[in-house]
Amino acid sequence: MTIELIIIGDEILNGRTVDANLAWLAPWLFKQGLKLGNVAIVRDDQEQMLKALELAWSRSDIVLTSGGIGPTLDDLTKTVLAEFAGKKLCEDRQARAIVENNYARLSRPWTPTTNGYHLIPQDFIATDNPGGLAPGLVWFDHNKALMAAPGVPKEFALMVEHVFFPLLQSKGFNVAGDQAQIIMRTYGVPEEKIFGELCPSLWQQLTPYGKVASLPHLTGVDILITFDGANNKEKFQSEIQTIVESSALSAHVWQWGELSLEQLIVDKAREKNLTFCFAESCTGGLAASKITDIAGSSEVFLGSAVTYANEAKNEFVGVKQQTLSKFGAVSEEVASEMASGALKKFGADFCVSFSGIAGPGGGSGAKPVGLVCQGFASAQKTQSRSLQFRGDRLKLKERFALSGLFWLLENLN
Amino acid sequence: MTIELIIIGDEILNGRTVDANLAWLAPWLFKQGLKLGNVAIVRDDQEQMLKALELAWSRSDIVLTSGGIGPTLDDLTKTVLAEFAGKKLCEDRQARAIVENNYARLSRPWTPTTNGYHLIPQDFIATDNPGGLAPGLVWFDHNKALMAAPGVPKEFALMVEHVFFPLLQSKGFNVAGDQAQIIMRTYGVPEEKIFGELCPSLWQQLTPYGKVASLPHLTGVDILITFDGANNKEKFQSEIQTIVESSALSAHVWQWGELSLEQLIVDKAREKNLTFCFAESCTGGLAASKITDIAGSSEVFLGSAVTYANEAKNEFVGVKQQTLSKFGAVSEEVASEMASGALKKFGADFCVSFSGIAGPGGGSGAKPVGLVCQGFASAQKTQSRSLQFRGDRLKLKERFALSGLFWLLENLN
Repeated sequence: MTIELIIIGDEILNGRTVDANLAWLAPWLFKQGLKLGNVAIVRDDQEQMLKALELAWSRSDIVLTSGGIGPTLDDLTKTVLAEFAGKKLCEDRQARAIVENNYARLSRPWTPTTNGYHLIPQDFIATDNPGGLAPGLVWFDHNKALMAAPGVPKEFALMVEHVFFPLLQSKGFNVAGDQAQIIMRTYGVPEEKIFGELCPSLWQQLTPYGKVASLPHLTGVDILITFDGANNKEKFQSEIQTIVESSALSAHVWQWGELSLEQLIVDKAREKNLTFCFAESCTGGLAASKITDIAGSSEVFLGSAVTYANEAKNEFVGVKQQTLSKFGAVSEEVASEMASGALKKFGADFCVSFSGIAGPGGGSGAKPVGLVCQGFASAQKTQSRSLQFRGDRLKLKERFALSGLFWLLENLN
Repeated sequence: MTIELIIIGDEILNGRTVDANLAWLAPWLFKQGLKLGNVAIVRDDQEQMLKALELAWSRSDIVLTSGGIGPTLDDLTKTVLAEFAGKKLCEDRQARAIVENNYARLSRPWTPTTNGYHLIPQDFIATDNPGGLAPGLVWFDHNKALMAAPGVPKEFALMVEHVFFPLLQSKGFNVAGDQAQIIMRTYGVPEEKIFGELCPSLWQQLTPYGKVASLPHLTGVDILITFDGANNKEKFQSEIQTIVESSALSAHVWQWGELSLEQLIVDKAREKNLTFCFAESCTGGLAASKITDIAGSSEVFLGSAVTYANEAKNEFVGVKQQTLSKFGAVSEEVASEMASGALKKFGADFCVSFSGIAGPGGGSGAKPVGLVCQGFASAQKTQSRSLQFRGDRLKLKERFALSGLFWLLENLN
């Protein structure tokens, strides 16, 4: 079963909108064990759209499109689908019922003059849109399916998951996949050191299990093994863990699986019944925002003192004026006082603090852009350390925050 | 001059990595006045890669690829480029010099056994990689250019901007574009209300100027007019502003241009010499993190008290226990006390506070998920308001934060 996606919209190729539908669809299909074959991104242009449809239809079983089914004049998908299938746009009773119902749900009026949502290509099926107003469009032909969803990310995801896939299943498409993946996530070592030094035969040893990939991220390098045969996953994973555990790479593996670092921290803290907090300067609330992305984080996370100004460092977490003037805001001494001060004020078990230079300005020879001083405080100890990273302001904020979160995770383990 | 991008990598189609290169390239090209024609995303698969190359080459002047030029065994781009061009992989003196130089820059050793970076398809040009190790590859043929860059976003962007485009220019490619865009950004009204009610003839009135697009975002609806003829921009924009200013839409336009909301806030505060701070509960540091993404924000932003726990609301910003127990943490009363308490402690001119329910748990009939209470405090006044939004936890955090930032902007204006 091959699946292909066509993303339609000038706004994406003009850089006004970052596509979110592939970013959702790809991992979602993967979790179903299904394979996304190709993606094309085209303009709101009849000829381009038609060409992309023809190519996708020639080689795939299911062709999904995203975008261009709204009410404005640049929404051409319906017209192009009609042309592609050799059909006319006609008034459709089901489409009309869906539209009337969707508008009623939002207590808004709809008549055929509001928009043309009730017109669809003949022999197409209008589907519900659980997240919006415009109906989806589906055409079954020669054991293939052509399915058009809105471009708005929430509408696209709800329609694909709750409308299109159940419909495919009811029409006998085999959408129960068998693809699986083992994920090993490392931290603190570059790709070349992993494969060149820590575990030189790793790639060769993993290859018999499936397709190997190595993905460097800000959080480290993820190594993935993808294969058909989901029920082998447990056996394969335990064999691969044995391979890795006998190598020097073992110390750098922080997770076998899909959980985010933030989720892992919240889970660990909950499991051990520990609370934590932050004192942030250079990360400017990013560490706290990452943790609070996790549902239920309020059980273990008490808060963060985002003390950007020096006076706030003193006022909120008790950093001494004299420490600030003697060592400067970006110093291990200040980081230590931030951590121990915030720990006390929040009444938490652990605190991590961040003071650094995210740039582009503010760096000096002794304290260059990319330097971060971090403090860690608990009832037992207060520690500090300095790390030096590269990158622009946003990357540095990320690296500053992530390295502090890894430090917290180490202390939770 | 048509430009096309081929993104190579299983990790993107498997949903392990969200592509960042299109997200960078599309707006960057647009700013140069150049048009990105099509994008294809393909797997690390020789046949798929070859097909995508052939299609792109048949219709575009410049074909860029991203990914697959690293050292691991799934990096196939070089092999496929050689096959596509009908060339052999050969040792190249320039490639070797570049690689040796790149490794020396990082004080790491390189020999021909480290990797095959010195081997490139015959007649291709090896280029520098200002952000990494692997050289880029360029082939000029029949007045077209094929250019392969690494998939790592930083390396891709630096190579395209600082190596590929200067090279194209030196070879006589006309990469000075003439496309321009007028951007009108609205807040607080849905698309249909804009075009159906506030300014019903807007689309028709804008069409003579260029291609019109309407893009709903979390921050509102952006309306774009794109046209060839960059030196008409000023004249067009003033005419369009006149059209809009005579309509009811005018009150909802928050910007004509490209600045982010955060940048606009920092600029306004700087211009008026005002400082601000936040007290955050449900946004968990997101509002602060958005502001501190802006370089120079430290001149006007003093910090944020991220008081997730109730005790922290009392300890850090002086919310009274009795207010908490009488009205609950999510209440306008608590939001007011958070704002005035943080204002005083930070010594800021303005403070916005956020207390709400981001879900998925914690909602009730009277206080459902999506409710946010916001406070605004200055020396002159303390106000509060309640807003109700829809969405999942992350979307709600975004909407809570953005609506508070708009409130701050209104007060700065």
